[in-house]
Amino acid sequence: MGAMYFEIFGQMKKMLGQLDKWLDSAAAFAQKKSFDPNLFLGFRLAPDQFGLARQVQAACDVSKLAAARLSGKEAPVHPDTEQTLGELQARVRSVLAYLDGFTAKDFEGAAARVVSQPRWEGKVMTGADYFLEHGLPNFFFHVTHTYAILRHNGVDVGKRDYLGTLTLRQP
Amino acid sequence: MGAMYFEIFGQMKKMLGQLDKWLDSAAAFAQKKSFDPNLFLGFRLAPDQFGLARQVQAACDVSKLAAARLSGKEAPVHPDTEQTLGELQARVRSVLAYLDGFTAKDFEGAAARVVSQPRWEGKVMTGADYFLEHGLPNFFFHVTHTYAILRHNGVDVGKRDYLGTLTLRQP
Repeated sequence: MGAMYFEIFGQMKKMLGQLDKWLDSAAAFAQKKSFDPNLFLGFRLAPDQFGLARQVQAACDVSKLAAARLSGKEAPVHPDTEQTLGELQARVRSVLAYLDGFTAKDFEGAAARVVSQPRWEGKVMTGADYFLEHGLPNFFFHVTHTYAILRHNGVDVGKRDYLGTLTLRQP
Repeated sequence: MGAMYFEIFGQMKKMLGQLDKWLDSAAAFAQKKSFDPNLFLGFRLAPDQFGLARQVQAACDVSKLAAARLSGKEAPVHPDTEQTLGELQARVRSVLAYLDGFTAKDFEGAAARVVSQPRWEGKVMTGADYFLEHGLPNFFFHVTHTYAILRHNGVDVGKRDYLGTLTLRQP
């Protein structure tokens, strides 16, 4: 199982790399339309839902914390102070650099780890349950909402930009 | 690895079950606001993006086809003719029933299978790459867009409705 966790974190890294590019597309769109690109940070799909900045921060945190909790390592702290698209991209790249430091071996035994969070009021999840039921769906939730907010606001991103390059082979 | 694929399909089933409930919430919201609930099927976040019905159909198809391709089984055919929220829910439940038929053993050797699609122009992916790079992100893309379209249009769904009940345990 350790190898599979590692592979899925590899896919998360790929998605964060794509997200970084979507923010480039957002900046280019703002320039073309002559509006402040940092307005994107507050754009949202519903008034009581996270705006784009919080979606990006959450995508970063979910992947960072899942890797840390499943491996027993410390996660770097990010204070959520980003004010520009460039600062959000720096956040993404910082988390990518952190995730680059993991190997498949780090996730051996991950499924049986005990994970707790203050909001769970003393209860715990196994590493396996936490990753499947919490880390994985939350990661894609925030990545996809980042994409959806940009798409909704006219940025030229499509499904290929979401998925990135597929590892196609000759048969 | 077979066991891990099976577990992730289990999580996909959980997400589809949550999606089914969001459509109940959409119907309730339409009733409360006195509009035709089936208007939801055409709602979308951008003019050139799939509307809700296509998002639900795609979430169903991605999970169904991934399970079939990774196990070498046949997938049931669904003709994309749904016209109501109830018909979309029937589609979801049909796929859930199909996925219920799988066991961990069905996914033994899945990583090494060869997967092809007409749009790949003769090229192939390994089962492992296909699942990680295509099935998993596409599934969450369409599930999250379904959620986002509902949320954007005022339906009372939140993060707990997205995740469903977590398997919390006593420490």
